[in-house]
Amino acid sequence: MSNNEQHPRALPVQNARIFPRGELDILSRVEVARLRDASSGGMHELLRRCALAVLTSGSASDDPRAASDLYPDFDIQVTQQDRGVLIDLVNAPASAFVDGIIIKGIAELLYAVVRDLAYTAIEMGPEYAAELESSEGITNAVFGLMRNARGLQPGDPNLVVCWGGHSIPRDEYLYTKQVGYELGLRGMDICTGCGPGAMKGPMKGATIAHAKQRKHPARYIGITEPGIIAAESPNPIVNHLVIMPDIEKRLESFVRLGHGIIVFPGGVGTAEEILYLLGILLREENKDLPFPLVLTGPAVAAPYFEQIDRFIRLTLGEEAAARYQIIVGDSQAVAKAMAAGIKQVREYRLHNKDSFYFNWGLHIPLEFQQPFVPTHEAMAALDLHKDRPAHALAADLRRAFSGIVAGNVKEPSMRLIEEHGPFLINGDPELMASLDALLRAFVAQRRMKIAGDYKPCYRVVT
Amino acid sequence: MSNNEQHPRALPVQNARIFPRGELDILSRVEVARLRDASSGGMHELLRRCALAVLTSGSASDDPRAASDLYPDFDIQVTQQDRGVLIDLVNAPASAFVDGIIIKGIAELLYAVVRDLAYTAIEMGPEYAAELESSEGITNAVFGLMRNARGLQPGDPNLVVCWGGHSIPRDEYLYTKQVGYELGLRGMDICTGCGPGAMKGPMKGATIAHAKQRKHPARYIGITEPGIIAAESPNPIVNHLVIMPDIEKRLESFVRLGHGIIVFPGGVGTAEEILYLLGILLREENKDLPFPLVLTGPAVAAPYFEQIDRFIRLTLGEEAAARYQIIVGDSQAVAKAMAAGIKQVREYRLHNKDSFYFNWGLHIPLEFQQPFVPTHEAMAALDLHKDRPAHALAADLRRAFSGIVAGNVKEPSMRLIEEHGPFLINGDPELMASLDALLRAFVAQRRMKIAGDYKPCYRVVT
Amino acid sequence: MSNNEQHPRALPVQNARIFPRGELDILSRVEVARLRDASSGGMHELLRRCALAVLTSGSASDDPRAASDLYPDFDIQVTQQDRGVLIDLVNAPASAFVDGIIIKGIAELLYAVVRDLAYTAIEMGPEYAAELESSEGITNAVFGLMRNARGLQPGDPNLVVCWGGHSIPRDEYLYTKQVGYELGLRGMDICTGCGPGAMKGPMKGATIAHAKQRKHPARYIGITEPGIIAAESPNPIVNHLVIMPDIEKRLESFVRLGHGIIVFPGGVGTAEEILYLLGILLREENKDLPFPLVLTGPAVAAPYFEQIDRFIRLTLGEEAAARYQIIVGDSQAVAKAMAAGIKQVREYRLHNKDSFYFNWGLHIPLEFQQPFVPTHEAMAALDLHKDRPAHALAADLRRAFSGIVAGNVKEPSMRLIEEHGPFLINGDPELMASLDALLRAFVAQRRMKIAGDYKPCYRVVT
Amino acid sequence: MSNNEQHPRALPVQNARIFPRGELDILSRVEVARLRDASSGGMHELLRRCALAVLTSGSASDDPRAASDLYPDFDIQVTQQDRGVLIDLVNAPASAFVDGIIIKGIAELLYAVVRDLAYTAIEMGPEYAAELESSEGITNAVFGLMRNARGLQPGDPNLVVCWGGHSIPRDEYLYTKQVGYELGLRGMDICTGCGPGAMKGPMKGATIAHAKQRKHPARYIGITEPGIIAAESPNPIVNHLVIMPDIEKRLESFVRLGHGIIVFPGGVGTAEEILYLLGILLREENKDLPFPLVLTGPAVAAPYFEQIDRFIRLTLGEEAAARYQIIVGDSQAVAKAMAAGIKQVREYRLHNKDSFYFNWGLHIPLEFQQPFVPTHEAMAALDLHKDRPAHALAADLRRAFSGIVAGNVKEPSMRLIEEHGPFLINGDPELMASLDALLRAFVAQRRMKIAGDYKPCYRVVT
Repeated sequence: MSNNEQHPRALPVQNARIFPRGELDILSRVEVARLRDASSGGMHELLRRCALAVLTSGSASDDPRAASDLYPDFDIQVTQQDRGVLIDLVNAPASAFVDGIIIKGIAELLYAVVRDLAYTAIEMGPEYAAELESSEGITNAVFGLMRNARGLQPGDPNLVVCWGGHSIPRDEYLYTKQVGYELGLRGMDICTGCGPGAMKGPMKGATIAHAKQRKHPARYIGITEPGIIAAESPNPIVNHLVIMPDIEKRLESFVRLGHGIIVFPGGVGTAEEILYLLGILLREENKDLPFPLVLTGPAVAAPYFEQIDRFIRLTLGEEAAARYQIIVGDSQAVAKAMAAGIKQVREYRLHNKDSFYFNWGLHIPLEFQQPFVPTHEAMAALDLHKDRPAHALAADLRRAFSGIVAGNVKEPSMRLIEEHGPFLINGDPELMASLDALLRAFVAQRRMKIAGDYKPCYRVVT
Repeated sequence: MSNNEQHPRALPVQNARIFPRGELDILSRVEVARLRDASSGGMHELLRRCALAVLTSGSASDDPRAASDLYPDFDIQVTQQDRGVLIDLVNAPASAFVDGIIIKGIAELLYAVVRDLAYTAIEMGPEYAAELESSEGITNAVFGLMRNARGLQPGDPNLVVCWGGHSIPRDEYLYTKQVGYELGLRGMDICTGCGPGAMKGPMKGATIAHAKQRKHPARYIGITEPGIIAAESPNPIVNHLVIMPDIEKRLESFVRLGHGIIVFPGGVGTAEEILYLLGILLREENKDLPFPLVLTGPAVAAPYFEQIDRFIRLTLGEEAAARYQIIVGDSQAVAKAMAAGIKQVREYRLHNKDSFYFNWGLHIPLEFQQPFVPTHEAMAALDLHKDRPAHALAADLRRAFSGIVAGNVKEPSMRLIEEHGPFLINGDPELMASLDALLRAFVAQRRMKIAGDYKPCYRVVT
Repeated sequence: MSNNEQHPRALPVQNARIFPRGELDILSRVEVARLRDASSGGMHELLRRCALAVLTSGSASDDPRAASDLYPDFDIQVTQQDRGVLIDLVNAPASAFVDGIIIKGIAELLYAVVRDLAYTAIEMGPEYAAELESSEGITNAVFGLMRNARGLQPGDPNLVVCWGGHSIPRDEYLYTKQVGYELGLRGMDICTGCGPGAMKGPMKGATIAHAKQRKHPARYIGITEPGIIAAESPNPIVNHLVIMPDIEKRLESFVRLGHGIIVFPGGVGTAEEILYLLGILLREENKDLPFPLVLTGPAVAAPYFEQIDRFIRLTLGEEAAARYQIIVGDSQAVAKAMAAGIKQVREYRLHNKDSFYFNWGLHIPLEFQQPFVPTHEAMAALDLHKDRPAHALAADLRRAFSGIVAGNVKEPSMRLIEEHGPFLINGDPELMASLDALLRAFVAQRRMKIAGDYKPCYRVVT
Repeated sequence: MSNNEQHPRALPVQNARIFPRGELDILSRVEVARLRDASSGGMHELLRRCALAVLTSGSASDDPRAASDLYPDFDIQVTQQDRGVLIDLVNAPASAFVDGIIIKGIAELLYAVVRDLAYTAIEMGPEYAAELESSEGITNAVFGLMRNARGLQPGDPNLVVCWGGHSIPRDEYLYTKQVGYELGLRGMDICTGCGPGAMKGPMKGATIAHAKQRKHPARYIGITEPGIIAAESPNPIVNHLVIMPDIEKRLESFVRLGHGIIVFPGGVGTAEEILYLLGILLREENKDLPFPLVLTGPAVAAPYFEQIDRFIRLTLGEEAAARYQIIVGDSQAVAKAMAAGIKQVREYRLHNKDSFYFNWGLHIPLEFQQPFVPTHEAMAALDLHKDRPAHALAADLRRAFSGIVAGNVKEPSMRLIEEHGPFLINGDPELMASLDALLRAFVAQRRMKIAGDYKPCYRVVT
């Protein structure tokens, strides 16, 4: 069924033929054919990339390009037979196998990749484009994907989403582990973006606590998307992997699945996420919805959250600041706050006969569901004035941060900036001054990526 | 949540509000809305009728119209709430409840009704009509319905389909129980049309054997269709109920799910089923496919099978007779033959990498998938000559039997015959003589329905 | 592993070698050796008889001697090997096997036989005789046997003990089934003496209800003793079989395990059981202990309970009559009364921190734990006067009934009576008159055994 | 149920009342009383010490006395109530609790402590002293304790015992983790002495691998004894804790439960263990018994095993060296060797019908089961000459090492040496020279305990 051969660059590889068990094995002939077509057609490179990411899950390296470089001849073929699907791996990383047999947890992640890409190809193809233009249609698509991925499970609310940087200092990483441990001791499951750093620490900590509390099964849900799975390969603790088609549906999954959210330190991307959630929570429709939100980090991270807090109070007002708690250097207090908050969520949903596993009651307007494409024009057009309704301002501030993230690390935006100079952001002088201070602080704390000096991709017009 | 009130005709009824658990509780808002619409629209009367059938499941009476007469004010409403579906029952039979709480097994049958009717409404609506015109499309629809109904489960082949009359003499009924018992002792699960008589006996017998063999869970699959569920209300042993949209898809379900088929005595309808299966098995494409088929009954039923056998040999030839075994009065031998046959099925599918849970490899031509509407013209047009290929002749013979069944018991056909006289069936003199003898024997053995003298709805033109 | 051979009398038999799974396979070498010694020594005939009883479980015949006559060459050997115990069956009833493999449920009953006889031999041997002379010591032995037999399981109180005759008219049998059905619908498990009649009916009814309510696993506990297992072979529904060493420990097991007791009609033996329980419940120490006790039967059995009731009121007083309810011809009311009573038991034990699985709080005096040997002297010495404390009078009345049962059916007593004439029972004239009337009624209702005319084994000296 | 109070030394403590679940809750009144008596009588200090060890399990500190010093007011009372046992903890470490509720895994370890000490008190009291004087009696006691502790479970052989030092350098610790990881990937469970170092590493590694392979439940068995549990507190991964009454029964447990043994580096104590096992395996009776034994460590530990190997070849000969493999710096090879060896064990036991869960077939002579008390006389009397049978020489060499361990760390022996000077060990000059070289090497590698210079407690008379 499998044989080993030596790769020229001496990294051991292996061929294997795998018969998926579980959901994948009850597909109709038509579905198998569409899956095979999709995986051999335009989707093939995507499938190849995602599959390699999970096959190198838990490897020492976490350099996204490394995987592709190290296993240049890797390939995957999904073929059809009467009994269902058959996955052929060629020149796959030998580290995913034990004595020629694929590690079971890695196989499950691999099936998840095939399952989710197939679902997207089959159920969200061009013929359904119209459905994806309404807010309700998008939410429905998120629901369908999540249900197909077995991500929706009955049971009491206990799912904590953890956000934060994927590349953080060791003391911040240890703190995320400690928080995960305290959450796990209290029976909570963890959902993250499934990469390293603040996305791995809470799961590791929870694993130990769950073992101590004899909690089994426990859920370690990783929600990713094709654009980042290679860079943020699922850590090996993840036992539910879901690949959403884009970043917006991934964000919506987090806030509809999670019963509470913890934000660890993490740079401008994390600031964007905070603004995303606050922008939603500030909507009149969501005013009475309980949604526990805790910003936390070790003592050394205090300045980070002070700046964020100051900025939010100034821009969005006290009402926004009332939706979160900041807790510094006290993992136990974080877990207790989360437990108390989730208890309220439970009571609210019981009272409103709302489901536990999907937050239908949360109103997410279309502007938060559709992607923001950062161009000089779009960035300049942002309406950053304090007299706007807080949620509208939050939406545009989120776009501003999103644009900066893109200008920092995403290729299309970086090219735009090389040609036309930095994005110009303008608005209220006071607001602009505050934004400028925040961004400078990020630079000073080395939270804008990077090796080397940081050359800003934006200019705040104060 | 529920309260009792006395029905004018003194049959105790009860109102109840039920929150389905399991699959029904993870529906999207859109699905719930479509389900509610369907159930309050044209589908409502169908839903009402099927729901009443399962709510009276296991009642002493088995008169189809009785249920509707006895519970004239019964109604069911499916409504929507955030947490999922909610089923309101009004004036429901109190016998389905214990101390105000619905019996769990009956609740499961009720969810099955809602689930299958909803699936049919949502996934097989007019927009999919084109897909249902090809053989592959129909098979796909059968697969989809079965999968959605959790009817497809991995595991070694062990599913025996039992066919036979729903109204049979007591000694024949006891024999079906005995066969079910011997099947159960050998670990086999049972699938029937889920009504009384030969559809209930094998399940009852298997239940006792499964208890003795500590087999749990065991599967008692009932496959029905809206036209007969009221008349053949699911017996209370059924723990997987599936409602297929019409009689042809129901027949296809039997032969694609079952790993072997046992036919008990049962009149002209049962003769039709035998012809259906033989017609398919005689196709060149299915020549090498193992498919255990046993015709059996107690010693007193020997003449029945002798006549059937003689008729088949004469009309379809020895090749057809080679596809079945006749075993009389030996339930143990039946079970052993079935076990041996299913062992071959298992080996064949392993060798061909075919699935265990759905017989994709069985070729069913479109003519067996599309309904036959019996009219005088259609009946007269049947081409009953011995020089035709056996499978083609089988198809037309099946239609002939089907027409007689309809002429006996289905209202539209009965009306036709009142107006225009009996159906005329003609063909080869020898074949016609044989057919005539067979039908006369059925009449003599009182296997054509009925109380009172039988007045034939057909005339064989010999 | 097994081969068939024909028995001279043509009843098919089979040899087999069985490796028990479960508890029996984790025995020490010393234990296995003692078990083998015991089973090949004095205990061998006992083991042989009990084993044959379970191997013919569920057979059509229920004549105790029949089994031994039909399988005269049956033998069983328990041998030792490193991996544990090995059971060799010689000339065993072929009906216990399917295609050469023993039916799993029967194998479990067989292990139970070996397990319990071994426990009794090892843990209750002569060296422990002193311990069995105190009330506490006997209760401890009952506990130890029950625990070893896995009869003590945590979980909410739901165990109903059903008493009544093993040979009852069909309408009474059907009624016991109906009561079992209503108990099963309400989630209750059943414990009986594991023979036919009123010991089988409730289990059969409950099986159907448990299937409908999807209750699994359900417990069908049969408690027997070596003296009656052959005559009252475990019915095939029993999935927990316990063999207590004598009739008194069996009775104690019933009242310490059961959370409530239902008494069906059953003759003088059943009267004895009622007196046993009332005698205990009338003790001052048990005054406040809730213990649901329902006497019930179909409408035709009303006279039986009227007589019993009249007799109890007259002899033991209203206080005794207050401990039971009589419900005639209403199986649903019986189940509801039992459910309500068990709810009180639950609350009482919670409040007193008493265990759910063993009624430690019930005081059973030594006189009810030690066997009564009926001789003419002992019977004549019974002190049947109404001025005694009710519980003391109950104890002697129980002995009187016990003596009559023995005089009717047990060989040693029957011989005594042949030699010396009937037992003389004397006491208060009024009490004697009442007893006489009761016994005559039993005779008239044909509840004293038997084919043929009944010749009383006693004389009431009025 | 629990309340917090501040301890004078500011280490948070907590009172709690615990109702054990599982085995402990089905005790008879007599057993509970004996348990309570034992725990309040002479056994109380032992119980207190063991309980504190598990309550501080997984704490940062691993200093045995630290626990007692840090929680001087800790106490435990086992009391009786009808429902079973009740455990009262006073001034217990607050770290064992989450929000006032004891961590489930710690509670399980606590029940194990009570269970095993109770079993020893009840079943191995003075009245059974005679039974413990024969080899078979001791093995029976080991079996009884292990069975009562649920340590004997059916299932395929997969239990690897890991021996090695509890205080080892970091690179050696990481290697033990790596070996545990590779074992876990191959489905093997781990059994150790349950302390830190080489006893924790393999469990940690296996935990990660088991999670990746979705193996659940997995067994992490810790076998300890009262003398060392305080010093080697169970690490928090242990999910089966067993407390054997003394060091010899603990050693016997290892070799009867384990299907293979891995020895990591560890000083003179580990040398003693190797000699123990080799001494047994060299017995003629055990000649054909497969018993995989691998000595392994990271590359830096190579010299350690070279010296051990040289010494064994010289003293016990090639036959002894043939019973083990030395593998250096290749964790994967170790796991593969163990898997291959255990496969042979499985086949051997199947062929001999020996049990999988307890190695009855291993012959352990009484001299290895009875403790060796090291005195100057006993040490001088050891017969260390090469002309003796290898197994007899091994027994005395083991005693020599055992005496040195005691002279190094156990108080009674240390006092003896202070009074009378070092133990004198004498024998064959060549053997003595070799022993001397080995011991000197241990000193040089700092494997004889210790802070400070090592002053030998022995003198080899060469």
